[in-house]
Amino acid sequence: MHVDVGNALAVEASPGVPEDALERLDDRVRDAHEHIVAGMTREEFGYAALNLPKTADPAAIERAVEPFADSEVLLNVGIGGSALGAATLVDALGGDLDAHFLDNVDPEHVTALLEDIDLSQTVVHVVSRSGTTAETLANFLVVRDAMEQAGVDWTERTFVTTGPEGNLRDLADEHDLPALDAPEGVPGRFSALSTVGLPAAALAGHDVEAILAGAREGRAALTGSLFDCPAYAYGATAYALDVRGAGINAMMPYAESLETFAEWFAQLWAESLGKDGLGQTPARALGATDQHSQLQLYRAGPRDKLVTLVRAREREDRGIPDTELEGLDYLAGGSLGDLLDAEFEATEASLAESGVPSVRVEIPRIDERSLGRLLYDFEAACVLAGELYGVETFTQPAVEWGKDAARGLLSGERGLPEKTELVVE
Amino acid sequence: MHVDVGNALAVEASPGVPEDALERLDDRVRDAHEHIVAGMTREEFGYAALNLPKTADPAAIERAVEPFADSEVLLNVGIGGSALGAATLVDALGGDLDAHFLDNVDPEHVTALLEDIDLSQTVVHVVSRSGTTAETLANFLVVRDAMEQAGVDWTERTFVTTGPEGNLRDLADEHDLPALDAPEGVPGRFSALSTVGLPAAALAGHDVEAILAGAREGRAALTGSLFDCPAYAYGATAYALDVRGAGINAMMPYAESLETFAEWFAQLWAESLGKDGLGQTPARALGATDQHSQLQLYRAGPRDKLVTLVRAREREDRGIPDTELEGLDYLAGGSLGDLLDAEFEATEASLAESGVPSVRVEIPRIDERSLGRLLYDFEAACVLAGELYGVETFTQPAVEWGKDAARGLLSGERGLPEKTELVVE
Repeated sequence: MHVDVGNALAVEASPGVPEDALERLDDRVRDAHEHIVAGMTREEFGYAALNLPKTADPAAIERAVEPFADSEVLLNVGIGGSALGAATLVDALGGDLDAHFLDNVDPEHVTALLEDIDLSQTVVHVVSRSGTTAETLANFLVVRDAMEQAGVDWTERTFVTTGPEGNLRDLADEHDLPALDAPEGVPGRFSALSTVGLPAAALAGHDVEAILAGAREGRAALTGSLFDCPAYAYGATAYALDVRGAGINAMMPYAESLETFAEWFAQLWAESLGKDGLGQTPARALGATDQHSQLQLYRAGPRDKLVTLVRAREREDRGIPDTELEGLDYLAGGSLGDLLDAEFEATEASLAESGVPSVRVEIPRIDERSLGRLLYDFEAACVLAGELYGVETFTQPAVEWGKDAARGLLSGERGLPEKTELVVE
Repeated sequence: MHVDVGNALAVEASPGVPEDALERLDDRVRDAHEHIVAGMTREEFGYAALNLPKTADPAAIERAVEPFADSEVLLNVGIGGSALGAATLVDALGGDLDAHFLDNVDPEHVTALLEDIDLSQTVVHVVSRSGTTAETLANFLVVRDAMEQAGVDWTERTFVTTGPEGNLRDLADEHDLPALDAPEGVPGRFSALSTVGLPAAALAGHDVEAILAGAREGRAALTGSLFDCPAYAYGATAYALDVRGAGINAMMPYAESLETFAEWFAQLWAESLGKDGLGQTPARALGATDQHSQLQLYRAGPRDKLVTLVRAREREDRGIPDTELEGLDYLAGGSLGDLLDAEFEATEASLAESGVPSVRVEIPRIDERSLGRLLYDFEAACVLAGELYGVETFTQPAVEWGKDAARGLLSGERGLPEKTELVVE
């Protein structure tokens, strides 16, 4: 992974990081790296995620999906980290599999989807570490019922990834479903490179071993200096900008197939770092499209943003046909890729011109190896940032209140506190 | 439209708006409203958008799309405001039309899309007010060429919406294509309820007149007080929270079909208000999914956010089947809609519990009339907010630099300023 933080330096941007401040920060990066390595060595909760490139078992994943290899449709039933890693890989890498991620409980959406797909050609992957996630279990019950109604034996078309206990484990045991173990010590948002995220990629025909090989490259590249390690360069720079006022991180890949990557990043960054009143707010964007939507604000709005520009250096290109239309000669002989690259570089320069910090991230191309590296490096960047903020990177305590309240409402056991109303209609 | 700003008041939230501050702000709302009405009366640039419910001509739109009524696929070629309004309507309202919005210049995406659809069954709507937008023209040239290669007469399957001059107008004249006039005085991001956004809805079989009727309701509801006008209640509260520190507006609809609405809102809000160092940064979210992604940050991160919760009060529901699984009795006899509503209310309460301001927006259901009202009211909210900030709501000067630079790069006429590099790889 290639990371260029030049446009985030104080000589270019405000807020920006003085180069000597980055050098001082590097002492903290060295200490943080030692702490991270110690956590990895002891397979501590969370840090264990950074060992997945070594501990994940691609053969077990291949075995689990093998019975479903001829499926035309994948229904991944899981929410949050149990959806986004898989969706990121499948959306980026493409393939013929018609993959759907049932990660919401919108009845109209669920009904439309179930009416649209051929359930007899569908493999269902139910993913919940706890085995008790309300949305996931509710959706699974609906899917199972729809299969029964359609005369499809759901037990022949379902496999699960879950922890050692819970409803899903019981279900797998009872019906002899293929069951993958959710990796120990790995929070959902760090589980793309495991039995949580990789089965979808395998079903779509992608090389799981190559994804992990890319991730291993990232692991081997972890060193004690942000000047030698692209993951840490990114994490440290984002942190240093946030504490200088760039509280928003606009993640803007220049590739439609990486749009889901921006969502995955948004979860990783928000849920890991958003605590104790700290944390940078991710904003998902897409180049070049959002130049016609968000760029005005990024350039001329409040100075509270870092813009992260991501692209692949190689791709399948497509020429722009010659035209009789006047004034379009600048497009002549060019390609859509040329146009996209020109917009990438012009946007980067336009942010610099107005003093808005940006970081450029490049990968060689969008393939298994590069994706594995990209996801691993951003996970490592996030873990480093968590160390620098001094937060508990791997927990998400603030979501529990709402979960309990929703459960209380549904069971009728308790209501909500009285709400202050000021209604206008 | 029902707007409840109770949870944005200072008695509930920090930042929050003291109720007497809202009352004082209402004087400014009254003045702003007078200014808005004057602009509407004179059909001034931008303000003219708020007259679209009266000035749009649904019959002309129906006539333009009528020759293409049997098309199975819509390819909407346009970017930014020339895509998002149409996409918002079609994604929300559904229908059998297979609609695609070519709003990026990613060659791999364009190629995959063109290989995937039956061009002989496709209607192409090319949308550019100026008629010269680089991305749109490049994509159109590619689409036209693909149709020719496939033996499809593109002149029989294409219509345009554009201004009085430019490449697209010339093209329509030369090839006798049906051509709709882009509305005068209406910036792209305010053009959903016009010849820009409505043709896609018409092609998908929706009642354009009902959409406009909903918008007319919104227009009739514009009054000089935020306490009487839901659009102004929203715009004034968002503004009042921003100036008190809530620089981020997380737009979180609880309906998959409104996900694109959040994108439309993000453009409207960012490009209209993001200037002079001012403007609230929109963050697109989706309920209930993002409870498992962004909620941790919203509740426990920096106190810089307003969360806007949007839902429809009625929908087609789907029961959750009974289950033998233990511990799920709280779901028994319920529906996915019950679960979604419980999550909506629990999330709203959980934000209040941690003192994070939120606003609740409800529409009766997701249909033509309600959508027209929703879009109109958010446009009016944005125009009001622009008055309160004192910015030029209807321009986007900060994007020109990058457009010129990209054009210079492509034509080879000029390069970019030298870039500061600090590369780690």
